[in-house]
Amino acid sequence: MDSKVTTILNAARKRFAHYGLGKTTMNDIAADIGMSKASLYYYFTDKEKIFVAVVDQDIAEFVDTIEQLIERPSKPSFKLKKYVTLRNQLLVKLFNLGRVENPSPADLFNPVFDELKIKYFTKEKSLMQRILQLGIDEKEFIKFNVQAYADLFLSTLAGIRTNALTASEPLRAEMASIEDQSRLFVEIFLKSIRAEA
Amino acid sequence: MDSKVTTILNAARKRFAHYGLGKTTMNDIAADIGMSKASLYYYFTDKEKIFVAVVDQDIAEFVDTIEQLIERPSKPSFKLKKYVTLRNQLLVKLFNLGRVENPSPADLFNPVFDELKIKYFTKEKSLMQRILQLGIDEKEFIKFNVQAYADLFLSTLAGIRTNALTASEPLRAEMASIEDQSRLFVEIFLKSIRAEA
Repeated sequence: MDSKVTTILNAARKRFAHYGLGKTTMNDIAADIGMSKASLYYYFTDKEKIFVAVVDQDIAEFVDTIEQLIERPSKPSFKLKKYVTLRNQLLVKLFNLGRVENPSPADLFNPVFDELKIKYFTKEKSLMQRILQLGIDEKEFIKFNVQAYADLFLSTLAGIRTNALTASEPLRAEMASIEDQSRLFVEIFLKSIRAEA
Repeated sequence: MDSKVTTILNAARKRFAHYGLGKTTMNDIAADIGMSKASLYYYFTDKEKIFVAVVDQDIAEFVDTIEQLIERPSKPSFKLKKYVTLRNQLLVKLFNLGRVENPSPADLFNPVFDELKIKYFTKEKSLMQRILQLGIDEKEFIKFNVQAYADLFLSTLAGIRTNALTASEPLRAEMASIEDQSRLFVEIFLKSIRAEA
């Protein structure tokens, strides 16, 4: 990648993480790296395109990490449990991608978020389907509708996160943590799909 | 209940359902029922108090419906499945309560929503715990941590709804319906807690 583009994306990544897409301007990004506005516009015609490029990198890192997990020699049930832990960690580290799953109210109706959400959702679903199919092929899991189960699995994980992140402080104090809820969910899920030993 | 209060709550219920708490004014409500502003203020000092009264009625209807389900002579596994269907139906019918679970962006940070969310969450959790405990007592279910399972169960249902309701049209087209996802979830959940026959 052009080193100028790398510089722009690194600076923009930080801006977006702190201020969100809505409150970041092309001026801010240009000023952060001491670049003229004209030069910045030469590379990207608007901040939405920069945001998409940043989140595309996040998605690539997410997919790469999970593919390594899938290829490691381990039981599918282990991969599934590890997936849940990794997912929660990655969505904290890849803050802008995490925001795509849970947009701030200001960004809720921005079509860029829709576009990125679909892209992320599609990739994640295919990763999840691979893990589940592996378990069926290796006979660790019983046969089931891989597509519907993958949907539900991801929807539940996303739901647990969204619920916790949008809860107010007093309500959150009543709830189990994202990690604990996700862990319990994967246990319950595994119990229902594990083939008899 | 004072029949004036009933009239106010019925009119306000419709207003809130159509325009949300944020866009409804005391003037609107007074005008809808041909009452002077002064009289309306005699009964309620602000629209937030009216909203709380409306949602309190919704919560009471929700709890009442589920208690009837719990008291009916049926297996706990049936009650659990039926709960999921009823919950989704009730949150559509009791639109303002549904909004408490999924506030519009304008209401997301309104403390009234927090207060009502906690109230609803607490009631719902205790209903869910009763159903799960019943299953353990009747030995249809294995023993498990009722509190943690109730949390996860409700969090998942809420998550599935929130996910679907906040998804944009193109994304929603890729997802299974709230009903299908909830039904699959309760099946998976039941498989993991059912005692061996």
